[in-house]
Amino acid sequence: MQLQIALDTLDLDACMTLLDEVHEHIGIIEVGTPFIILEGMRLVRVLSERYPDCAVLADCKIMDAGELEADHAFEAGADIVTVLGVAANATIEGVVRSARRHGKQVMVDMIDCPNLAERAAQIEKLGVDYICVHTAFDVQAHSAGPLDELRVLNTVLTRARAAVAGGVSLSTIDDIVAEGAEVIVVGGAIANAQNRAEAARALAERLHTHE
Amino acid sequence: MQLQIALDTLDLDACMTLLDEVHEHIGIIEVGTPFIILEGMRLVRVLSERYPDCAVLADCKIMDAGELEADHAFEAGADIVTVLGVAANATIEGVVRSARRHGKQVMVDMIDCPNLAERAAQIEKLGVDYICVHTAFDVQAHSAGPLDELRVLNTVLTRARAAVAGGVSLSTIDDIVAEGAEVIVVGGAIANAQNRAEAARALAERLHTHE
Repeated sequence: MQLQIALDTLDLDACMTLLDEVHEHIGIIEVGTPFIILEGMRLVRVLSERYPDCAVLADCKIMDAGELEADHAFEAGADIVTVLGVAANATIEGVVRSARRHGKQVMVDMIDCPNLAERAAQIEKLGVDYICVHTAFDVQAHSAGPLDELRVLNTVLTRARAAVAGGVSLSTIDDIVAEGAEVIVVGGAIANAQNRAEAARALAERLHTHE
Repeated sequence: MQLQIALDTLDLDACMTLLDEVHEHIGIIEVGTPFIILEGMRLVRVLSERYPDCAVLADCKIMDAGELEADHAFEAGADIVTVLGVAANATIEGVVRSARRHGKQVMVDMIDCPNLAERAAQIEKLGVDYICVHTAFDVQAHSAGPLDELRVLNTVLTRARAAVAGGVSLSTIDDIVAEGAEVIVVGGAIANAQNRAEAARALAERLHTHE
Protein backbone atom coordinates (compact mmCIF):
# COMPACT_ATOMS: atom_id res chain seq x y z
CA MET A 1 0.00 0.00 0.00
CA GLN A 2 1.12 3.50 -0.82
CA LEU A 3 -0.03 6.91 0.37
CA GLN A 4 -0.55 9.46 -2.41
CA ILE A 5 -0.76 13.14 -1.52
CA ALA A 6 -2.92 15.38 -3.73
CA LEU A 7 -1.47 18.89 -3.90
CA ASP A 8 -4.41 21.26 -3.92
CA THR A 9 -2.56 24.47 -3.26
CA LEU A 10 -1.60 26.51 -6.29
CA ASP A 11 1.59 28.01 -5.01
CA LEU A 12 4.84 26.25 -5.87
CA ASP A 13 6.64 27.36 -2.71
CA ALA A 14 3.70 26.29 -0.52
CA CYS A 15 3.73 22.87 -2.22
CA MET A 16 7.43 22.44 -1.52
CA THR A 17 7.10 23.57 2.10
CA LEU A 18 4.37 20.97 2.59
CA LEU A 19 6.33 18.23 0.83
CA ASP A 20 9.51 18.98 2.78
CA GLU A 21 7.48 18.32 5.94
CA VAL A 22 5.73 15.14 4.83
CA HIS A 23 7.52 13.48 1.88
CA GLU A 24 9.18 10.77 3.96
CA HIS A 25 5.70 9.30 4.61
CA ILE A 26 4.52 9.62 1.00
CA GLY A 27 4.85 7.16 -1.89
CA ILE A 28 3.28 9.23 -4.67
CA ILE A 29 3.10 13.02 -5.07
CA GLU A 30 0.06 14.05 -7.14
CA VAL A 31 0.24 17.26 -9.15
CA GLY A 32 -3.45 18.18 -9.29
CA THR A 33 -5.48 19.12 -12.34
CA PRO A 34 -6.05 22.76 -11.25
CA PHE A 35 -2.30 23.35 -11.05
CA ILE A 36 -1.79 21.69 -14.47
CA ILE A 37 -4.49 23.88 -16.06
CA LEU A 38 -2.82 26.94 -14.59
CA GLU A 39 0.84 26.15 -15.17
CA GLY A 40 1.12 23.02 -17.28
CA MET A 41 3.93 20.60 -16.46
CA ARG A 42 6.06 23.06 -14.45
CA LEU A 43 5.36 21.51 -11.05
CA VAL A 44 5.89 17.99 -12.45
CA ARG A 45 9.35 19.03 -13.65
CA VAL A 46 10.30 20.66 -10.35
CA LEU A 47 8.99 17.94 -8.03
CA SER A 48 10.35 14.97 -9.98
CA GLU A 49 13.83 16.52 -9.61
CA ARG A 50 13.44 17.49 -5.98
CA TYR A 51 11.87 14.33 -4.51
CA PRO A 52 13.55 11.40 -6.30
CA ASP A 53 12.37 8.94 -3.63
CA CYS A 54 8.69 9.67 -4.40
CA ALA A 55 6.82 8.86 -7.60
CA VAL A 56 5.20 11.90 -9.26
CA LEU A 57 1.68 11.52 -10.68
CA ALA A 58 0.42 14.06 -13.22
CA ASP A 59 -3.36 14.23 -12.80
CA CYS A 60 -3.98 15.22 -16.42
CA LYS A 61 -7.41 13.48 -16.55
CA ILE A 62 -6.80 12.79 -20.25
CA MET A 63 -9.98 12.55 -22.36
CA ASP A 64 -8.60 12.57 -25.94
CA ALA A 65 -5.29 12.55 -27.81
CA GLY A 66 -4.13 10.00 -25.25
CA GLU A 67 -0.70 9.17 -26.58
CA LEU A 68 0.29 12.79 -27.28
CA GLU A 69 -0.84 14.16 -23.92
CA ALA A 70 0.74 11.30 -21.96
CA ASP A 71 4.00 11.79 -23.85
CA HIS A 72 4.14 15.39 -22.60
CA ALA A 73 3.63 14.35 -19.00
CA PHE A 74 6.16 11.51 -19.04
CA GLU A 75 8.72 13.67 -20.83
CA ALA A 76 8.29 16.28 -18.08
CA GLY A 77 9.21 13.66 -15.47
CA ALA A 78 5.90 12.10 -14.42
CA ASP A 79 6.03 8.46 -13.27
CA ILE A 80 2.25 7.99 -13.48
CA VAL A 81 -0.32 9.78 -15.70
CA THR A 82 -4.10 9.72 -15.27
CA VAL A 83 -6.67 9.14 -18.03
CA LEU A 84 -10.44 9.21 -17.51
CA GLY A 85 -12.46 6.01 -17.34
CA VAL A 86 -15.16 7.72 -19.43
CA ALA A 87 -12.66 8.26 -22.27
CA ALA A 88 -12.76 6.08 -25.40
CA ASN A 89 -10.81 2.82 -25.29
CA ALA A 90 -8.60 4.19 -28.08
CA THR A 91 -7.60 7.09 -25.82
CA ILE A 92 -6.74 4.82 -22.89
CA GLU A 93 -4.78 2.56 -25.25
CA GLY A 94 -2.81 5.59 -26.44
CA VAL A 95 -1.87 6.48 -22.86
CA VAL A 96 -0.81 2.86 -22.23
CA ARG A 97 1.38 2.88 -25.38
CA SER A 98 3.07 6.07 -24.20
CA ALA A 99 3.62 4.64 -20.72
CA ARG A 100 5.17 1.42 -22.05
CA ARG A 101 7.50 3.38 -24.33
CA HIS A 102 8.64 5.53 -21.39
CA GLY A 103 8.79 2.67 -18.87
CA LYS A 104 6.13 4.45 -16.79
CA GLN A 105 2.61 3.81 -15.47
CA VAL A 106 -1.06 4.62 -16.11
CA MET A 107 -3.83 5.29 -13.59
CA VAL A 108 -7.43 5.39 -14.80
CA ASP A 109 -9.63 7.82 -12.88
CA MET A 110 -13.17 6.38 -12.68
CA ILE A 111 -14.69 9.72 -11.59
CA ASP A 112 -18.33 10.07 -12.72
CA CYS A 113 -18.08 6.78 -14.63
CA PRO A 114 -21.38 4.89 -14.93
CA ASN A 115 -21.45 1.07 -14.78
CA LEU A 116 -18.32 0.90 -12.65
CA ALA A 117 -17.92 -2.89 -12.52
CA GLU A 118 -18.46 -3.44 -16.23
CA ARG A 119 -16.26 -0.51 -17.30
CA ALA A 120 -13.43 -1.39 -14.86
CA ALA A 121 -13.33 -4.93 -16.24
CA GLN A 122 -13.09 -3.58 -19.82
CA ILE A 123 -10.39 -1.09 -18.86
CA GLU A 124 -8.27 -3.65 -17.02
CA LYS A 125 -7.94 -5.55 -20.30
CA LEU A 126 -6.37 -2.46 -21.92
CA GLY A 127 -3.25 -3.00 -19.81
CA VAL A 128 -3.47 -0.14 -17.32
CA ASP A 129 -1.59 -0.27 -14.01
CA TYR A 130 -4.05 1.31 -11.58
CA ILE A 131 -7.80 1.88 -11.58
CA CYS A 132 -8.93 4.58 -9.14
CA VAL A 133 -12.42 5.02 -7.72
CA HIS A 134 -12.84 8.72 -7.08
CA THR A 135 -15.60 10.76 -5.47
CA ALA A 136 -15.51 14.12 -7.26
CA PHE A 137 -14.61 17.14 -5.15
CA ASP A 138 -17.75 18.85 -6.47
CA VAL A 139 -20.02 16.11 -5.04
CA GLN A 140 -18.17 15.12 -1.84
CA ALA A 141 -20.51 17.17 0.35
CA HIS A 142 -23.44 14.97 -0.76
CA SER A 143 -21.64 11.64 -0.99
CA ALA A 144 -20.92 8.73 1.32
CA GLY A 145 -17.36 8.61 -0.03
CA PRO A 146 -15.60 6.10 -2.25
CA LEU A 147 -15.64 2.97 -0.01
CA ASP A 148 -18.63 1.30 -1.66
CA GLU A 149 -17.12 1.88 -5.09
CA LEU A 150 -13.83 0.40 -3.88
CA ARG A 151 -15.69 -2.74 -2.84
CA VAL A 152 -17.20 -3.03 -6.32
CA LEU A 153 -13.80 -2.45 -7.92
CA ASN A 154 -12.15 -5.13 -5.80
CA THR A 155 -14.71 -7.72 -6.96
CA VAL A 156 -13.67 -7.07 -10.56
CA LEU A 157 -9.90 -6.53 -10.71
CA THR A 158 -7.62 -9.48 -11.38
CA ARG A 159 -4.35 -7.81 -12.36
CA ALA A 160 -4.61 -4.00 -12.25
CA ARG A 161 -4.27 -2.50 -8.79
CA ALA A 162 -6.94 -0.53 -7.00
CA ALA A 163 -6.63 3.12 -5.96
CA VAL A 164 -9.10 5.25 -4.06
CA ALA A 165 -9.60 9.02 -3.80
CA GLY A 166 -12.10 11.54 -2.54
CA GLY A 167 -12.19 12.94 0.96
CA VAL A 168 -10.17 10.18 2.67
CA SER A 169 -9.31 11.11 6.26
CA LEU A 170 -7.92 9.57 9.44
CA SER A 171 -11.49 8.63 10.42
CA THR A 172 -12.24 6.78 7.16
CA ILE A 173 -8.88 5.30 6.20
CA ASP A 174 -9.10 2.16 8.35
CA ASP A 175 -12.15 0.85 6.50
CA ILE A 176 -10.43 1.54 3.19
CA VAL A 177 -7.25 -0.19 4.30
CA ALA A 178 -9.28 -3.17 5.52
CA GLU A 179 -11.08 -3.38 2.17
CA GLY A 180 -7.73 -3.15 0.40
CA ALA A 181 -6.23 -0.71 -2.14
CA GLU A 182 -2.69 -0.35 -3.47
CA VAL A 183 -2.88 3.46 -3.50
CA ILE A 184 -4.83 5.67 -1.10
CA VAL A 185 -5.07 9.33 -2.06
CA VAL A 186 -5.23 11.95 0.69
CA GLY A 187 -5.44 15.72 0.31
CA GLY A 188 -6.99 17.95 2.94
CA ALA A 189 -6.45 15.38 5.72
CA ILE A 190 -2.76 16.25 5.51
CA ALA A 191 -2.73 19.77 4.05
CA ASN A 192 -5.31 21.16 6.49
CA ALA A 193 -3.94 19.41 9.62
CA GLN A 194 -2.46 21.51 12.40
CA ASN A 195 0.62 19.29 12.38
CA ARG A 196 0.99 18.13 8.80
CA ALA A 197 4.03 15.88 9.33
CA GLU A 198 2.26 14.14 12.20
CA ALA A 199 -0.94 13.73 10.11
CA ALA A 200 1.05 12.17 7.25
CA ARG A 201 2.92 9.88 9.66
CA ALA A 202 -0.33 8.77 11.31
CA LEU A 203 -2.04 8.07 7.97
CA ALA A 204 0.98 6.16 6.62
CA GLU A 205 1.10 4.11 9.84
CA ARG A 206 -2.50 2.98 9.27
CA LEU A 207 -1.46 1.59 5.89
CA HIS A 208 1.51 -0.28 7.20
CA THR A 209 -0.24 -1.88 10.17
CA HIS A 210 -2.24 -3.88 7.60
CA GLU A 211 0.71 -5.05 5.54
CA MET B 1 -22.33 31.17 -37.38
CA GLN B 2 -18.74 31.38 -36.24
CA LEU B 3 -15.60 29.57 -37.30
CA GLN B 4 -13.45 28.31 -34.43
CA ILE B 5 -9.84 27.32 -35.09
CA ALA B 6 -8.33 24.58 -32.92
CA LEU B 7 -4.61 25.16 -32.43
CA ASP B 8 -2.96 21.77 -32.50
CA THR B 9 0.64 22.87 -32.80
CA LEU B 10 2.57 23.16 -29.56
CA ASP B 11 4.86 26.01 -30.50
CA LEU B 12 3.79 29.51 -29.51
CA ASP B 13 5.53 31.18 -32.44
CA ALA B 14 4.00 28.71 -34.90
CA CYS B 15 0.54 29.42 -33.43
CA MET B 16 1.02 33.16 -33.86
CA THR B 17 2.33 32.80 -37.42
CA LEU B 18 -0.77 30.77 -38.30
CA LEU B 19 -3.12 33.20 -36.56
CA ASP B 20 -1.53 36.23 -38.19
CA GLU B 21 -2.37 34.60 -41.54
CA VAL B 22 -5.95 33.57 -40.77
CA HIS B 23 -7.39 35.50 -37.82
CA GLU B 24 -9.51 37.86 -39.91
CA HIS B 25 -11.65 34.85 -40.93
CA ILE B 26 -11.89 33.41 -37.40
CA GLY B 27 -14.43 34.11 -34.65
CA ILE B 28 -12.99 31.93 -31.88
CA ILE B 29 -9.38 30.88 -31.25
CA GLU B 30 -9.23 27.56 -29.36
CA VAL B 31 -6.23 26.88 -27.15
CA GLY B 32 -6.18 23.08 -27.23
CA THR B 33 -5.95 20.68 -24.31
CA PRO B 34 -2.46 19.37 -25.21
CA PHE B 35 -1.05 22.89 -25.07
CA ILE B 36 -2.80 23.55 -21.75
CA ILE B 37 -1.43 20.35 -20.23
CA LEU B 38 2.05 21.34 -21.36
CA GLU B 39 2.06 25.05 -20.54
CA GLY B 40 -1.11 25.90 -18.64
CA MET B 41 -2.74 29.25 -19.38
CA ARG B 42 0.29 30.86 -21.05
CA LEU B 43 -1.11 30.74 -24.58
CA VAL B 44 -4.51 31.99 -23.39
CA ARG B 45 -2.83 35.04 -21.86
CA VAL B 46 -0.77 35.79 -24.96
CA LEU B 47 -3.52 35.27 -27.54
CA SER B 48 -6.26 37.16 -25.68
CA GLU B 49 -3.96 40.21 -25.69
CA ARG B 50 -2.79 39.83 -29.27
CA TYR B 51 -6.11 39.14 -31.05
CA PRO B 52 -8.72 41.31 -29.29
CA ASP B 53 -11.17 40.90 -32.20
CA CYS B 54 -11.35 37.12 -31.69
CA ALA B 55 -12.80 35.28 -28.70
CA VAL B 56 -10.34 32.91 -26.99
CA LEU B 57 -11.61 29.49 -25.88
CA ALA B 58 -9.62 27.54 -23.28
CA ASP B 59 -10.27 23.85 -24.00
CA CYS B 60 -9.73 22.79 -20.39
CA LYS B 61 -12.19 19.85 -20.64
CA ILE B 62 -13.02 20.36 -16.96
CA MET B 63 -14.13 17.20 -15.12
CA ASP B 64 -14.11 18.30 -11.44
CA ALA B 65 -13.53 21.42 -9.31
CA GLY B 66 -15.52 23.29 -11.95
CA GLU B 67 -15.68 26.72 -10.40
CA LEU B 68 -11.99 26.82 -9.40
CA GLU B 69 -10.66 25.61 -12.73
CA ALA B 70 -12.92 27.91 -14.75
CA ASP B 71 -11.86 30.86 -12.57
CA HIS B 72 -8.24 30.25 -13.59
CA ALA B 73 -9.07 30.21 -17.27
CA PHE B 74 -11.27 33.32 -17.20
CA GLU B 75 -8.74 35.20 -15.09
CA ALA B 76 -6.08 34.36 -17.71
CA GLY B 77 -8.23 36.01 -20.36
CA ALA B 78 -10.39 33.21 -21.78
CA ASP B 79 -13.81 34.26 -23.16
CA ILE B 80 -15.13 30.67 -23.27
CA VAL B 81 -14.15 27.64 -21.15
CA THR B 82 -15.01 24.00 -21.88
CA VAL B 83 -16.36 21.46 -19.37
CA LEU B 84 -17.09 17.82 -20.19
CA GLY B 85 -20.65 16.59 -20.73
CA VAL B 86 -19.75 13.45 -18.75
CA ALA B 87 -18.89 15.58 -15.68
CA ALA B 88 -21.27 15.78 -12.71
CA ASN B 89 -24.01 18.42 -12.88
CA ALA B 90 -22.41 20.08 -9.84
CA THR B 91 -19.18 20.53 -11.82
CA ILE B 92 -20.96 22.07 -14.83
CA GLU B 93 -22.91 24.33 -12.45
CA GLY B 94 -19.62 25.50 -10.92
CA VAL B 95 -18.27 26.43 -14.35
CA VAL B 96 -21.49 28.33 -15.13
CA ARG B 97 -21.23 30.25 -11.82
CA SER B 98 -17.68 31.25 -12.65
CA ALA B 99 -18.67 32.32 -16.16
CA ARG B 100 -21.55 34.48 -14.93
CA ARG B 101 -19.29 36.14 -12.35
CA HIS B 102 -16.72 36.95 -15.04
CA GLY B 103 -19.28 37.89 -17.73
CA LYS B 104 -17.96 35.04 -19.90
CA GLN B 105 -19.27 31.85 -21.52
CA VAL B 106 -19.35 28.04 -21.13
CA MET B 107 -19.12 25.38 -23.82
CA VAL B 108 -19.92 21.78 -22.89
CA ASP B 109 -17.89 19.20 -24.82
CA MET B 110 -20.06 16.11 -25.39
CA ILE B 111 -17.08 13.94 -26.39
CA ASP B 112 -17.63 10.25 -25.53
CA CYS B 113 -20.91 11.13 -23.80
CA PRO B 114 -23.50 8.34 -23.90
CA ASN B 115 -27.23 9.13 -24.30
CA LEU B 116 -26.52 12.35 -26.16
CA ALA B 117 -30.10 13.61 -26.51
CA GLU B 118 -31.06 12.98 -22.89
CA ARG B 119 -27.81 14.39 -21.48
CA ALA B 120 -27.84 17.48 -23.73
CA ALA B 121 -31.38 18.30 -22.57
CA GLN B 122 -30.28 18.01 -18.91
CA ILE B 123 -27.20 20.13 -19.50
CA GLU B 124 -29.06 22.88 -21.33
CA LYS B 125 -31.10 23.42 -18.15
CA LEU B 126 -27.89 24.15 -16.23
CA GLY B 127 -27.54 27.44 -18.10
CA VAL B 128 -24.61 26.73 -20.42
CA ASP B 129 -24.06 28.80 -23.57
CA TYR B 130 -22.88 26.20 -26.09
CA ILE B 131 -23.15 22.42 -26.34
CA CYS B 132 -20.59 20.86 -28.68
CA VAL B 133 -20.82 17.47 -30.34
CA HIS B 134 -17.27 16.26 -30.79
CA THR B 135 -15.80 13.20 -32.46
CA ALA B 136 -12.64 12.40 -30.48
CA PHE B 137 -9.33 12.73 -32.32
CA ASP B 138 -8.49 9.21 -31.14
CA VAL B 139 -11.54 7.70 -32.91
CA GLN B 140 -11.84 9.93 -36.02
CA ALA B 141 -10.19 7.33 -38.24
CA HIS B 142 -13.05 4.91 -37.53
CA SER B 143 -15.91 7.42 -37.33
CA ALA B 144 -18.38 8.92 -39.78
CA GLY B 145 -17.83 12.33 -38.16
CA PRO B 146 -20.06 14.47 -35.97
CA LEU B 147 -22.91 15.29 -38.38
CA ASP B 148 -25.33 12.63 -37.10
CA GLU B 149 -24.71 13.77 -33.53
CA LEU B 150 -25.32 17.40 -34.57
CA ARG B 151 -28.71 16.34 -35.97
CA VAL B 152 -29.59 14.73 -32.63
CA LEU B 153 -28.40 17.80 -30.73
CA ASN B 154 -30.48 20.15 -32.88
CA THR B 155 -33.64 18.18 -32.11
CA VAL B 156 -33.06 18.81 -28.39
CA LEU B 157 -31.72 22.35 -27.92
CA THR B 158 -34.12 25.18 -27.24
CA ARG B 159 -31.85 27.93 -25.90
CA ALA B 160 -28.22 26.82 -25.81
CA ARG B 161 -26.41 27.03 -29.13
CA ALA B 162 -24.93 24.07 -30.99
CA ALA B 163 -21.25 23.63 -31.76
CA VAL B 164 -19.57 20.86 -33.71
CA ALA B 165 -15.99 19.54 -33.77
CA GLY B 166 -14.01 16.60 -35.06
CA GLY B 167 -12.39 16.41 -38.46
CA VAL B 168 -14.51 19.11 -40.16
CA SER B 169 -13.10 19.95 -43.63
CA LEU B 170 -14.05 21.84 -46.77
CA SER B 171 -15.68 18.66 -48.10
CA THR B 172 -17.90 18.15 -45.02
CA ILE B 173 -18.66 21.70 -43.89
CA ASP B 174 -21.59 22.34 -46.26
CA ASP B 175 -23.69 19.54 -44.73
CA ILE B 176 -22.91 20.86 -41.25
CA VAL B 177 -23.80 24.43 -42.22
CA ALA B 178 -27.04 23.21 -43.80
CA GLU B 179 -27.91 21.29 -40.62
CA GLY B 180 -27.07 24.38 -38.57
CA ALA B 181 -24.59 25.13 -35.78
CA GLU B 182 -23.55 28.39 -34.16
CA VAL B 183 -19.89 27.33 -33.89
CA ILE B 184 -18.00 25.08 -36.31
CA VAL B 185 -14.56 23.96 -35.12
CA VAL B 186 -11.84 23.38 -37.71
CA GLY B 187 -8.25 22.28 -37.11
CA GLY B 188 -6.22 20.42 -39.70
CA ALA B 189 -8.37 21.72 -42.57
CA ILE B 190 -6.72 25.09 -42.03
CA ALA B 191 -3.41 24.24 -40.35
CA ASN B 192 -2.44 21.56 -42.89
CA ALA B 193 -3.60 23.47 -45.98
CA GLN B 194 -1.02 24.59 -48.53
CA ASN B 195 -2.47 28.11 -48.40
CA ARG B 196 -3.80 28.53 -44.90
CA ALA B 197 -5.25 32.02 -45.31
CA GLU B 198 -7.12 30.86 -48.42
CA ALA B 199 -8.41 27.74 -46.61
CA ALA B 200 -9.69 29.85 -43.72
CA ARG B 201 -11.31 32.33 -46.11
CA ALA B 202 -13.00 29.53 -48.09
CA LEU B 203 -14.31 27.82 -44.93
CA ALA B 204 -15.59 31.11 -43.49
CA GLU B 205 -17.31 31.88 -46.79
CA ARG B 206 -19.26 28.61 -46.59
CA LEU B 207 -20.64 29.74 -43.22
CA HIS B 208 -21.70 33.14 -44.42
CA THR B 209 -23.44 31.96 -47.59
CA HIS B 210 -26.00 30.34 -45.31
CA GLU B 211 -26.62 33.34 -43.09
